[in-house]
Amino acid sequence: MAHLTDQEIAAKADIQPIEDIAAKAGIPNEALELHGKHKAKVDIHELEGDESNSKIVLVSAMNPTPAGEGKSTVTVGLSDAFNKLEKNVMVALREPSLGPVMGVKGGATGGGQAQVLPMEEINLHFNGDLHAITTANNALSAFIDNHIHHGNKLNIDPRRVSWKRVLDMNDRALRQVVVGLGGPSRGVPREDGFDITVASEIMAVLCLATDIIDLKEKLGEMVIGYTYDRKPVTAKELEVEGALALLLKEAIKPNLVQTMEGTPALIHGGPFANIAHGCNSLIATNTARKLADIVVTECGFGSDLGGEKFMNIKSRKGGFQPDAIVLVATIRALKMNGGVAKADLGEANVDALKEGIANLGKHIENARKFGVEPVVALNDFVTDTDEERNFVLDWCKDQGVRVALTQVWEKGGEGGVDLANQVLEVLEEPQEFKHLYELDLPIDQKIETIVKEVYGGDGVILADKAKKQLAEIEANGFGNLPVCMAKSQYSLSDDPSKLGRPEGFTVTVRELNVKAGAGFVVALTGDIMTMPGLPKKPSAVNMDVDADGTSRGLF
Amino acid sequence: MAHLTDQEIAAKADIQPIEDIAAKAGIPNEALELHGKHKAKVDIHELEGDESNSKIVLVSAMNPTPAGEGKSTVTVGLSDAFNKLEKNVMVALREPSLGPVMGVKGGATGGGQAQVLPMEEINLHFNGDLHAITTANNALSAFIDNHIHHGNKLNIDPRRVSWKRVLDMNDRALRQVVVGLGGPSRGVPREDGFDITVASEIMAVLCLATDIIDLKEKLGEMVIGYTYDRKPVTAKELEVEGALALLLKEAIKPNLVQTMEGTPALIHGGPFANIAHGCNSLIATNTARKLADIVVTECGFGSDLGGEKFMNIKSRKGGFQPDAIVLVATIRALKMNGGVAKADLGEANVDALKEGIANLGKHIENARKFGVEPVVALNDFVTDTDEERNFVLDWCKDQGVRVALTQVWEKGGEGGVDLANQVLEVLEEPQEFKHLYELDLPIDQKIETIVKEVYGGDGVILADKAKKQLAEIEANGFGNLPVCMAKSQYSLSDDPSKLGRPEGFTVTVRELNVKAGAGFVVALTGDIMTMPGLPKKPSAVNMDVDADGTSRGLF
Repeated sequence: MAHLTDQEIAAKADIQPIEDIAAKAGIPNEALELHGKHKAKVDIHELEGDESNSKIVLVSAMNPTPAGEGKSTVTVGLSDAFNKLEKNVMVALREPSLGPVMGVKGGATGGGQAQVLPMEEINLHFNGDLHAITTANNALSAFIDNHIHHGNKLNIDPRRVSWKRVLDMNDRALRQVVVGLGGPSRGVPREDGFDITVASEIMAVLCLATDIIDLKEKLGEMVIGYTYDRKPVTAKELEVEGALALLLKEAIKPNLVQTMEGTPALIHGGPFANIAHGCNSLIATNTARKLADIVVTECGFGSDLGGEKFMNIKSRKGGFQPDAIVLVATIRALKMNGGVAKADLGEANVDALKEGIANLGKHIENARKFGVEPVVALNDFVTDTDEERNFVLDWCKDQGVRVALTQVWEKGGEGGVDLANQVLEVLEEPQEFKHLYELDLPIDQKIETIVKEVYGGDGVILADKAKKQLAEIEANGFGNLPVCMAKSQYSLSDDPSKLGRPEGFTVTVRELNVKAGAGFVVALTGDIMTMPGLPKKPSAVNMDVDADGTSRGLF
Repeated sequence: MAHLTDQEIAAKADIQPIEDIAAKAGIPNEALELHGKHKAKVDIHELEGDESNSKIVLVSAMNPTPAGEGKSTVTVGLSDAFNKLEKNVMVALREPSLGPVMGVKGGATGGGQAQVLPMEEINLHFNGDLHAITTANNALSAFIDNHIHHGNKLNIDPRRVSWKRVLDMNDRALRQVVVGLGGPSRGVPREDGFDITVASEIMAVLCLATDIIDLKEKLGEMVIGYTYDRKPVTAKELEVEGALALLLKEAIKPNLVQTMEGTPALIHGGPFANIAHGCNSLIATNTARKLADIVVTECGFGSDLGGEKFMNIKSRKGGFQPDAIVLVATIRALKMNGGVAKADLGEANVDALKEGIANLGKHIENARKFGVEPVVALNDFVTDTDEERNFVLDWCKDQGVRVALTQVWEKGGEGGVDLANQVLEVLEEPQEFKHLYELDLPIDQKIETIVKEVYGGDGVILADKAKKQLAEIEANGFGNLPVCMAKSQYSLSDDPSKLGRPEGFTVTVRELNVKAGAGFVVALTGDIMTMPGLPKKPSAVNMDVDADGTSRGLF
C-alpha cells in the first residue's frame, strides 16, 4: 500500500451513506441535516442521552517533528480498533484549516488505512464552519472601523484596537498592514493585522460554548480594544453579538462523518494548539459523550500544548476529565529529540533514541501530574528497525508505563487493537484527575505553574510589555481566567532548538492578550506567529480537479 | 399582511422537502446533493435534456430608487404565476451577498408573498459559494505575495499587482491598505485594496464558465498584474489554476431551492450589476433551460446595467437569447426620476410621473434595440394611487407597449397572472435578437456604442489613465473582449444626480481593467466603489438568534 497516497487509499474506501452511520451512532433522523451523501450536521436539540457514563480517551503526543507524528492517524485508528472490539465508540476531531492544506500539509484527515471520509470535502471548506467564523470575525472588524468612522461614540482608541481581521489562509503579507488609507471616505487609518482563522477568538468561543445562547453571551464579552482612557470595549457595546451569533448558527452544529472502517466521527472546530487552545469543540465532545460509551478525542501537538490546554481549559469548562491518555511517539521524533538532523531521520540510530527518549519521559510524567495514566502508542513507520522498536518498547516497560506498537496506518483498526486493549485496562482503573492550578491564582503564577510543572523549566520572565498588560488585565477584572500558552510545538521550552528534555531554562512571555469571550488569557512566547506563511513551492501547485469533480493533490 | 416582515411571512410558508421540488423539476435523485432539508446542490453531469426548446424571460428594470423596485420579487412572483398557469417553469436568481445583508438590506430573497425559501439560509452563507470564491480569490493573493517574497522569479512589479483581495463584507476601511509591513519575514510591502467578493473576477469567471474544465482554463487566464517590463502575468504562470478550480468544485454546482408557492428555483452566482456583470451563473441558466420550458431570470438594476450585460456578455457566452424582457417599474421610481425627493415619494404626484416616465421610455427603447419585445411590470406599492396607476398603464398603451399591474408582493403568483399572460404573448412572437456590437470593434468604440445606444449619451471621454490602459490592453491582445461597464445604477448617465432621461451628456471612463479570465474589460466610470461601506446603524444591530436557532432581523 505504501506507494498509494492517502487520497488514493481514501478513494478506494467503501464509504457508507451518512444516514447509516448516524443510525449506528444512535442519532435520530430528526437530528440529521445532510450535506451531500457523506456528511451531515447534527442538531443537538434533538438528541437524548446521558453524558456522564461515557469515558474520554485523550490522544496527545511527545514533541513532534515538522512532518507530524500521525496523531490524527492514531486517533482514528484507535477508534476503529474499539469499533473492531465491538465497543460503542465515537471519535471527535478538529477541522482542518485550509491555510496549511494549501501550504505544506496537503490534507489533515489521518493517513493510510486510518482516515476520516470524505477526505476531500473535510479538507476543503467542509461544511462551512471556518468560513462562518472568518465572516463573523471580519464583520466585527468592519463594525469596529465603521463605528470609529461614524463619530466614534464609544471613544475607541484606533491605536488600541486589539481585534484583528482573519483569513483561513497562510498569508504572511497580511501579518502587519495599515487599513483606512485614501481619505475620509475610506475610514480612519490605523495599524492592523490578519491572523489565520483558527487563531480567531471566535474559533475559541465556538469551541468552548455549550449552546447558541452561551455562544452569544461569550461573543458579547469579547474585548475588541480600548478607549482613549484605557477602558476595555466589548462586542456587546457595539450591539452586534446577536448578528455574530446569527452568522454562526449553522457552524455551531457538530459535523458527522465516518472513518474508513465506518466508525462515527464528529469533526468540529479547529483551533491550532501552538497559538490557541487546540481542541475540537466542547459541543462535539459532549455530543459524542451522549451517544457513545467511549469517546476518542485528540488535542494538538504535545502534552505541553494541546494536552495541558485540554486539562486546564477545556475539561474545566466542560466539567469532565480524560479517563485515559494516549501519548503518540515515533522513532523519528525520538531520534530528532536525540539530536539527529531532519535529513537523517530515516537511518537507524539507537544511540540517538536513547538520548531522545527523555522527551517522551517528560510527557509521561505530565499525564500523571494531571492524575491520568498514559499509554504510549509507538506509531510505526516503514523506516523503523526492529532494534529501534524494541528499545522503545523495553524502555517503556522499564519505566512501568503501558506501551503498544501501533500499525494503524498500514492495517487500520486491526493495527490498533493492542493499544485499544491497554487503554481499556486504564479505563477500568479509577483516575484522580486534577487541574494544575486553581483559577484564583494570579495570572503570572498560573504561567509559572505551567512552565515549572509541564515544561520542566525554572521560571517565567515577563517582558515589559507583558508586565504592563498583566497589570491592565488584573485591573480590568480578568485575573481569574485560565491561561492559554502560545508556544513552539517543537520544544518543551519556548526555544524550538532545545530538544529532548531541556532543563534550567526560563520562558519569556512577550505579550498577554485577554480573550474575555473565550475565557482565557493568551500568553505569547518566543517567535510564535498567529499567521503562517506559505513555503516557496506551496502544495497548491500540485492540486487539480478533473472534469467529473475528482480532486488531485490532497495528500 | 403589510404589518408582517418578509421574514415573518416566510416563516409561515408551507415549505416542501427539497426532494419533492427536485422531483417536480425533473431532477433525478443521483443529481441531488442535499444541504439540509430545504436546499440542494445539483450535479449537472447527471442531468439530461435539451436546452434549445426552452424560452428565457429576462426581468430587467428602469433606473431604481435606493430602496429597489422589487425586481427579485417580480421575478419570483412571475415564475409563480407561470406555475399557476401550469407551465413547466423554473426561476434562476443571483445569490445574496452578506455585505449588504449586514449593512442596509437585511435580506435579498424577494418580498411579501413572492419570496424564495429558506430565506435565512439563502441570505446567510447559503451553500458556501461566496465563501469559496472569497477563499480562491485570497489564496491567489497569497500565492502572488508569496511568489514575490520567495525571489520573484516571474519578475512581478509589486506596484503593478492588479489582483486585489476580497471579503464578502461592506468594509470601507479595506478599500485602500498597505500590506507586507514589518520587515523581511512579513513579505514585500505594497499598496493593495479589498473589493467585495461579488466584484471578484472569480465570481465573474464562475458565472460565465460552462463546466469545471472551462472554469479552470478561465482561472488560468486571469491577469494578476504586470512585470517590471509591463508584460501581463497570469494565474497560470503561478501554476495555481488547478488549486483554484479545486477550491471551487462545489461552488460551481447550482443551488436548488423553492419559491413560497413551490416553484423550483436555482440560485447561483451573484455579481453586482453596477461593478460587475450582474447575472446569475450561465450554468444555472443552462440547467434551468434543460429542465423547464420557461426560464425566468433576472439581471441587476436597469436595462442600462444588468440588462445590457446580459445581452452583450452573458447571452454571447451562452449562445442563447432572451425571448421576452420584463421591465419592472414602480410609481415611486418614476416619481423619483421626475424629480421628487426620496422623503416625498409616498405622496401622490402625477405631474412628477409625467416627467419621470421618460426614464421608462428609454428602457423600453433599449429592449427593442436588442430586438426583444418588452412587457412593463408596474410593481404595485401600497402608497400608489389609482390616478397614478392609470396614468402609467395608459401611457404604456399609448406607446404601444404591453403593461401589467403586478401585485405579487401582496398576492403571490396570482398577482402576476396578467403579467405572465402578456409575456406568453411575446413568447409566441419571433424575436430578432442582436448584440449591439461585434467583438472585433475596438474597445473604445464598444464603450461608445453602449453610451450612445443604451445610455442615450453623446459620447465617451477616456481619462488619461484609461487611455494608457487602453493602449496596453490592445497591445496585450485583449482588444476583442466585450466591455463590462461599472456605472451608477441611479442614472442612465455616469452621474447619479441626472435622473429621468438625460440627454447631451458624455460618460467619463477613469480606468479600464482587463479581466481576461472572465473575458471582458471593465470600464470604471464616476465614483463607483468596488467595496461598499456600512451605514451609521447597520442592519446587523437588529439581528439575533434564539435558543432554537430561529433567526431575527433578516427583513
